[in-house]
Amino acid sequence: MQNINEDTITQAVIASLARCDRPRLRTIMTSLVQHLHAFARDVALTEDEWAQAIAFLTEVGHITDDKRQEFILLSDTLGLSMLVTTQNNVKPSNCTEATVFGPFFVEGSPVYQNGDDISNGAHGAPCYVSGQIRGVGGEPIPFAHLDVWQSDEDGFYDVQTPDASGETVMRARGRLTTDEHGRFHFRSILAEAYPIPHDGPVGRMLAATGRHPWRPAHLHFMIAAPGFETLVTHVFRNGDPYLDSDVVFGVRSTLIADWIEHAPGTAPDGTRFDAPWYSLDFDFVLNAGAA
Amino acid sequence: MQNINEDTITQAVIASLARCDRPRLRTIMTSLVQHLHAFARDVALTEDEWAQAIAFLTEVGHITDDKRQEFILLSDTLGLSMLVTTQNNVKPSNCTEATVFGPFFVEGSPVYQNGDDISNGAHGAPCYVSGQIRGVGGEPIPFAHLDVWQSDEDGFYDVQTPDASGETVMRARGRLTTDEHGRFHFRSILAEAYPIPHDGPVGRMLAATGRHPWRPAHLHFMIAAPGFETLVTHVFRNGDPYLDSDVVFGVRSTLIADWIEHAPGTAPDGTRFDAPWYSLDFDFVLNAGAA
Repeated sequence: MQNINEDTITQAVIASLARCDRPRLRTIMTSLVQHLHAFARDVALTEDEWAQAIAFLTEVGHITDDKRQEFILLSDTLGLSMLVTTQNNVKPSNCTEATVFGPFFVEGSPVYQNGDDISNGAHGAPCYVSGQIRGVGGEPIPFAHLDVWQSDEDGFYDVQTPDASGETVMRARGRLTTDEHGRFHFRSILAEAYPIPHDGPVGRMLAATGRHPWRPAHLHFMIAAPGFETLVTHVFRNGDPYLDSDVVFGVRSTLIADWIEHAPGTAPDGTRFDAPWYSLDFDFVLNAGAA
Repeated sequence: MQNINEDTITQAVIASLARCDRPRLRTIMTSLVQHLHAFARDVALTEDEWAQAIAFLTEVGHITDDKRQEFILLSDTLGLSMLVTTQNNVKPSNCTEATVFGPFFVEGSPVYQNGDDISNGAHGAPCYVSGQIRGVGGEPIPFAHLDVWQSDEDGFYDVQTPDASGETVMRARGRLTTDEHGRFHFRSILAEAYPIPHDGPVGRMLAATGRHPWRPAHLHFMIAAPGFETLVTHVFRNGDPYLDSDVVFGVRSTLIADWIEHAPGTAPDGTRFDAPWYSLDFDFVLNAGAA
């Protein structure tokens, strides 16, 4: 310990964890130190580059508040979020796949009934969304809980556009429950592609590495039912130009679906659209599990 | 890119860097992504652990300000700082070794003359520090610039103890210049062991992993002269109980020296100490180089 050098530092740090009485924490910290040091060795990180990294992380910390989570954006854009999602959501092949949670979920969003319009004034082309929630054996899951959230036609979630007093009016998000046949339907607005917030350090990192900040159009779902694993996923809009370059690496081909355009007329539930509208019909299959 | 999974995510992220026109940045980001993902795979990081990591980094960011740099403390306590220091300061064997910079350096500290007392009222046992700065061939380096900084007897640097108005009075730090024989001498206070700031997330990380927050007593030096590499190092106090467990892994045996205790009497420069005092005599050898 008195002759720490480039070759001995990693073992010295690992040895310092000898009195850690939480085995899982010790495993994580040991691996973190090994990989962090291996990175610094592999690239022969200079002292100036280290200082730039400290300054970058400081900026990420300082722009983060209760409305903006730049560390999640960083994790998302480095592919870490999608990796953690995939390795924790290994399921039978006919289950709906999971994707990244993202930074825009809100606890306690408005409760709606099937058929309601969840847009609550958010701007966008009108849209009718329907589907069924089933188990792996094909059985409908009645009374499953859905959280749905999406951006508006300008690419902003409600939490990004607070009103003049700084309050968020919840728009284009809501909670629904499936009927006795596991079915749901609601009105919202058409999903559109949008850039992630890129006026901060993560945006500068993307620009410096030649990457764009766009996500393909998608609709977020979180679906929970007793006896099933909670599913966090999106449905992506077929034809979107960013399906092959999602900045957070969230796309899976099984999650891509068509939003079909219609002339003004009658929706599947018998209600009327007086303007051109879109429809999305997508079914979800939940894995059996604890939640 | 539409079938991202646990096996393909890393290559997808690396491929996204294809348009980065800064080769060094691309190299660093590619390696960072590989090691970050390898870590998450090795420990099979769970979604809950990922969320805890996001929350931890958020706290590190929020406690960091212009006086406290928790990201540097995190880098220091994970051994990254010392690794970067060692791999960037490979020198001929008779050169004085470098160690971590730490978070307590201040630009523009007070300028003193040889023989001055740099403590400026900081509390501690009086101390007389002297030495010579030489090149690898043994030649004295006249008019070299020294920055010196240290904590007080309570373990605090001046920047940690602002006055009532929030201003820092610079104490126990200063700038000196060697004489025509490369020699320097000044008065200060005895270096004492101290804990790094541990009332934040890094302190909780140390406690959770069974580590103490202490650094062995030391005196910081940054030494610069035209035609030589700038040296950032400490001198560590022999006999300190934390020499074998420095929380930032900065100790090297070649940097350990004796602070010798004396009865009241005359210092080497002919001035008088009326109370018991300590002396440290330590020479530094700079590597030839650009700075």
